[in-house]
Amino acid sequence: MKTLNVGLVGSGFMGRAHAQAFRAVGGLFDLPLAPVLDILADRDEETARASAAALGFRRHTGDWRRLVEDPAVDVVAVTTPNRLHAPIALAAIAAGKHVYCEKPLATTLADARAMTAAAEARGVVTLVGFNYLKNPMIALAREIVQGGEIGEVTGFRGIHAEDFMADPDQPYGWRCEPDNAGGALADIGSHIIAMARHLAGEITAVSGRLHTVHGSRPAAPGSTERKSVTVDDQAHALVEFAGGATGSLTASWIAQGRKMQLAFELTGTRGSIAFTQERFNELRLYTAGGRRGREGYTLIAAGPEHGDYGAFCPAPGHQIGFNDLKAIEVKALVEAIAGTSAAGPDFREACEVERVAEAIHRSHRDRCWIDVRSV
Amino acid sequence: MKTLNVGLVGSGFMGRAHAQAFRAVGGLFDLPLAPVLDILADRDEETARASAAALGFRRHTGDWRRLVEDPAVDVVAVTTPNRLHAPIALAAIAAGKHVYCEKPLATTLADARAMTAAAEARGVVTLVGFNYLKNPMIALAREIVQGGEIGEVTGFRGIHAEDFMADPDQPYGWRCEPDNAGGALADIGSHIIAMARHLAGEITAVSGRLHTVHGSRPAAPGSTERKSVTVDDQAHALVEFAGGATGSLTASWIAQGRKMQLAFELTGTRGSIAFTQERFNELRLYTAGGRRGREGYTLIAAGPEHGDYGAFCPAPGHQIGFNDLKAIEVKALVEAIAGTSAAGPDFREACEVERVAEAIHRSHRDRCWIDVRSV
Amino acid sequence: MKTLNVGLVGSGFMGRAHAQAFRAVGGLFDLPLAPVLDILADRDEETARASAAALGFRRHTGDWRRLVEDPAVDVVAVTTPNRLHAPIALAAIAAGKHVYCEKPLATTLADARAMTAAAEARGVVTLVGFNYLKNPMIALAREIVQGGEIGEVTGFRGIHAEDFMADPDQPYGWRCEPDNAGGALADIGSHIIAMARHLAGEITAVSGRLHTVHGSRPAAPGSTERKSVTVDDQAHALVEFAGGATGSLTASWIAQGRKMQLAFELTGTRGSIAFTQERFNELRLYTAGGRRGREGYTLIAAGPEHGDYGAFCPAPGHQIGFNDLKAIEVKALVEAIAGTSAAGPDFREACEVERVAEAIHRSHRDRCWIDVRSV
Amino acid sequence: MKTLNVGLVGSGFMGRAHAQAFRAVGGLFDLPLAPVLDILADRDEETARASAAALGFRRHTGDWRRLVEDPAVDVVAVTTPNRLHAPIALAAIAAGKHVYCEKPLATTLADARAMTAAAEARGVVTLVGFNYLKNPMIALAREIVQGGEIGEVTGFRGIHAEDFMADPDQPYGWRCEPDNAGGALADIGSHIIAMARHLAGEITAVSGRLHTVHGSRPAAPGSTERKSVTVDDQAHALVEFAGGATGSLTASWIAQGRKMQLAFELTGTRGSIAFTQERFNELRLYTAGGRRGREGYTLIAAGPEHGDYGAFCPAPGHQIGFNDLKAIEVKALVEAIAGTSAAGPDFREACEVERVAEAIHRSHRDRCWIDVRSV
Repeated sequence: MKTLNVGLVGSGFMGRAHAQAFRAVGGLFDLPLAPVLDILADRDEETARASAAALGFRRHTGDWRRLVEDPAVDVVAVTTPNRLHAPIALAAIAAGKHVYCEKPLATTLADARAMTAAAEARGVVTLVGFNYLKNPMIALAREIVQGGEIGEVTGFRGIHAEDFMADPDQPYGWRCEPDNAGGALADIGSHIIAMARHLAGEITAVSGRLHTVHGSRPAAPGSTERKSVTVDDQAHALVEFAGGATGSLTASWIAQGRKMQLAFELTGTRGSIAFTQERFNELRLYTAGGRRGREGYTLIAAGPEHGDYGAFCPAPGHQIGFNDLKAIEVKALVEAIAGTSAAGPDFREACEVERVAEAIHRSHRDRCWIDVRSV
Repeated sequence: MKTLNVGLVGSGFMGRAHAQAFRAVGGLFDLPLAPVLDILADRDEETARASAAALGFRRHTGDWRRLVEDPAVDVVAVTTPNRLHAPIALAAIAAGKHVYCEKPLATTLADARAMTAAAEARGVVTLVGFNYLKNPMIALAREIVQGGEIGEVTGFRGIHAEDFMADPDQPYGWRCEPDNAGGALADIGSHIIAMARHLAGEITAVSGRLHTVHGSRPAAPGSTERKSVTVDDQAHALVEFAGGATGSLTASWIAQGRKMQLAFELTGTRGSIAFTQERFNELRLYTAGGRRGREGYTLIAAGPEHGDYGAFCPAPGHQIGFNDLKAIEVKALVEAIAGTSAAGPDFREACEVERVAEAIHRSHRDRCWIDVRSV
Repeated sequence: MKTLNVGLVGSGFMGRAHAQAFRAVGGLFDLPLAPVLDILADRDEETARASAAALGFRRHTGDWRRLVEDPAVDVVAVTTPNRLHAPIALAAIAAGKHVYCEKPLATTLADARAMTAAAEARGVVTLVGFNYLKNPMIALAREIVQGGEIGEVTGFRGIHAEDFMADPDQPYGWRCEPDNAGGALADIGSHIIAMARHLAGEITAVSGRLHTVHGSRPAAPGSTERKSVTVDDQAHALVEFAGGATGSLTASWIAQGRKMQLAFELTGTRGSIAFTQERFNELRLYTAGGRRGREGYTLIAAGPEHGDYGAFCPAPGHQIGFNDLKAIEVKALVEAIAGTSAAGPDFREACEVERVAEAIHRSHRDRCWIDVRSV
Repeated sequence: MKTLNVGLVGSGFMGRAHAQAFRAVGGLFDLPLAPVLDILADRDEETARASAAALGFRRHTGDWRRLVEDPAVDVVAVTTPNRLHAPIALAAIAAGKHVYCEKPLATTLADARAMTAAAEARGVVTLVGFNYLKNPMIALAREIVQGGEIGEVTGFRGIHAEDFMADPDQPYGWRCEPDNAGGALADIGSHIIAMARHLAGEITAVSGRLHTVHGSRPAAPGSTERKSVTVDDQAHALVEFAGGATGSLTASWIAQGRKMQLAFELTGTRGSIAFTQERFNELRLYTAGGRRGREGYTLIAAGPEHGDYGAFCPAPGHQIGFNDLKAIEVKALVEAIAGTSAAGPDFREACEVERVAEAIHRSHRDRCWIDVRSV
């Protein structure tokens, strides 16, 4: 079988998840190409060598430029801090590589657009790591919506809340830098924007409110000096969809007690769907018009009849994990590169997600509604 | 024991609930006054006679004016269609009666203000039927917030969603009339506004979006003629609180599958509370700083250690019902009339709730943020 | 309307619940007879006078014999300690009164049988307070089972667990006395036995295991002296049903954290039902053969389409409380006395419940299966 | 790093899961040995070749004897039908290989004992695939129990219920053969027995009841001929533990609607734990003695502070999947082989599980309690 040489840039939380997914995917799916963990780049030789060994890459480099220009590399996976997404992706595209990039796509909408234009001009495959969309239960939700099972979509109320920044003594870091796509909205809110678009379609107008709760944080771990923070700890937005639905979105990284509440309630004229990533192997579905006295939300447990679940387990209810979502994402990438199916969400879609986020920022600044298409 | 003669106007869903509560309350609580189901008024003599008999009132009248002027009547309970709240309450106040009124207080903010002014000038006790605030679990939530157990409030995300108008063939009725406090926001959204204020304090600014999903409904039950609808089927708002918190509120009466989703997540700097009226004998509490590896939301089941629960049952976990909330409300009314404790929410508080709703309406119309204090 | 004079013996937790139910029921249901809180008996004049005043009875007595012989009394409600059930009920029956008795019916099976025989010979109406059976959701469960919606019943796995005796320093009390129907099985296990019979039919054989976890308790509140305990803190039983199903029952009053876990999973050949009293306004129903990929347990929320729920609230999802179950029970009693419907569970049924409990006791003693019909 | 050559026998559901785990484990954990997917055996050359290619093994064979005798093989993984476990494991042990065997260990207790004796005599490492024990939440439960956080264990009520045999037209297969460890108790009940022992200790006595609900099934898929079934569709048992606790266990493969209900409630003198594999990234913990009015079950979400979770994800609440449990199991195996930690559950423990199952069978046959140590 033809191989697909993977060059991975970065080896943090997401770098590891990518490596694991590329490693596992061949044993799970019947793929048109065999991914090979070829080369890993990190901030320096030392780090790169250690990570390459730990994650199973055969080569390493302390210079990502070397990686993106390496003729042997077929696809570049970008899991660096946000600020590096654009230069790495643009260089990779220029070298004719396919690009698999973590979200958010870039730190400015302009960069995101340039990346999208470059990729489309060069004709490479792109994929952005909105991994939660790859959940078979989300595929089911989309199938239900698009099949008209719950009628026309009328409302979408979504949230992505976690609490990893809830402690005011959590130190300042790259997530707090405004020019590094910092803030709860950009960092995790992009997931719920992507989800809203995935299920309810284009968002056309927003009214947003950002909120910095902790105005300063320790300048560094253990530091007594405090550094001023200007990015949002939580964000709320009203949204209007092209299809006529309305709703609200919330992002928070100070939601005490929440670890992974990417949740939504989607209502339609003839039914509703409720979901939370906290129990992501479940989807609750209500369909109007059932037998009187027997109606209610049905809790559907993920099983082999739901999309890619069966690749992991032939028995229902056994559950897939977070890393398995990443494996599904990689499978989509490989198939798109082989041309056997369309990948997604690609750079263009990620650009649209950032456009919504940017519109929310402007709406907050101007305290008015913003037409997303004007952004 | 001194008695408290009750005059009830109206005998629909809420009229029955009032009657039941007045009937039950004496056996539950050790009250300073004994409520007597004295007189019931309804739209005509016939209806009033039947309802008085069914609900256990000793007298009846087809003319509410007779009731409010009756010297024997101590307190007037108003459960009529919204439009009659103002005239009945004003007449009752003029006659020196205490007034127990269903929500929304009036169909215009001007009326609500006039009612409040009149009541305060006359010095009568008023209480408005935001019964969900009377839940011992909500009392617990308030105690937790006010006692600082979860630090400073940073966010409030609330919703009141039901589906009784989800069917586009649900006929036009008084709830659809704009000049009768029609629409989801006024009808049920007022509950979540009241809840937000009760727990997170004054709302100072809003950005709102109303949405009429079903633009027409059958003019009457069984009618093939359709009547145009202009009131909202769902409403969303961003909110800012005087204390610095931000959040969002949603109201919907077309949320397929939801029967009583008055729900919120309240986050603080050191913890969170989650609640839904769908399981209103439960409160979920998260407090930061617990033992590592043992943290999580604790599901607190209502028990006799929680406020008024013990009046219903000495054993925890046995659960109170919707009508019991009304009994707690009536107990608060009776005690306020006797002067042994302050009632509430009174007309002034209900006025504030309507002010927020009015601000959301204006915000929707003008597509901008509205300072609630300017309304 | 004809009245029904109620004589209540006892005014503890259950006495209060009876009083409240008799007080409320007339305003909720359209009854053939109007209950009147006529006379209350308690252990002495003083207690009886205070309780009668608090609960709204017009007369009182310190001697229950006076009450049962009073010609004005139509029905005697017995809420005394278990040991007095038999003498009071027998005296009431002898006087031709209808009897409404709390569970367990008696402290010995022989007594229970004598009471049943006496009641049937005299032709009076009897009702035993297995109030959880009166839940509209349980009525729904029974309708589902009896209508064959889930096929033939194959299994029943039930539990009644609370934790009010979990603390080893909870003092010895009448619940600990073997000759007073003491022990978890008799005290609360009778509820799950009754539920199992109500839904899955006659229990024909049992294998039981009783377990005394705390072998001694303080002789009295505050006492340092400890008294030996011989009754069960928890009990487990395997059960066989006449219809062919098998299952298990558990009773525990030391189940830390459980306040009202009267719960079961009932499986049939074509579906299943799951229920817990902890959320007793909900029933979960699974029906096999649904659309592939859309199957799952449906959470049915109680609404007016479910039996007696509508008497409390015309809107679904608003929920009834524990005391409302008692009101439904009293409604059944009143209708049975009026002859408009059959009450139940009557003394005969309660006798069968005790027979199963007795069989479990014998099985524990002999460490073998016991044929219930042999007991 | 030294490698560990894996020989896998079988490539069904469990064979795939083993392969995937061996493939993934090196990227997840810092292991003392590097597993290599060396050789795969299956029923014939053809099948073996295809499976080896799909799962990434470098060699294959149609004869498992060749595999177990191959000097290059370090560990033999057995995922064949139950009946082959004994001959393969015994041959592997004779060849000095470590053995990783799926459950149930053997089809007779005698075989299981012979396997255990052989392994111990030869000094090889053994591990049996009770993968649910490897869940970090179960490790947490064990830590809580063994650390005395909930006092002395008093009760264990467990169940393993699924519905893959609920349809009476599900064909007869090897799971229905009595001499192939057929029946719900042996097939899935062994998991709940293992769990009970893992958390509550040795089971000393049982009273069991097996139940064949569907007495015949189609002889083969699509066949109209029906074959008689004698193994149990569901099984119930009362259990006594060496530590003094009592409880019940249930196994069912006809529990309509249940896909993976491996669930238990474990009560102690000072707290309780509740768990279900349906949501296996959660554990509910109740600890007595908390602040009055704030007590309740705490829902603990799996995070990096819980055992092996952190190897999969550094962020809490993201969740691991079924296959990840298998990876943890393989990690334990590799470490045990390297001698850096003790593996388990080993053959001896699996033998004890089978002994309990056998005792339940005998108890059913004789309708009496069975002392497990006598079996």
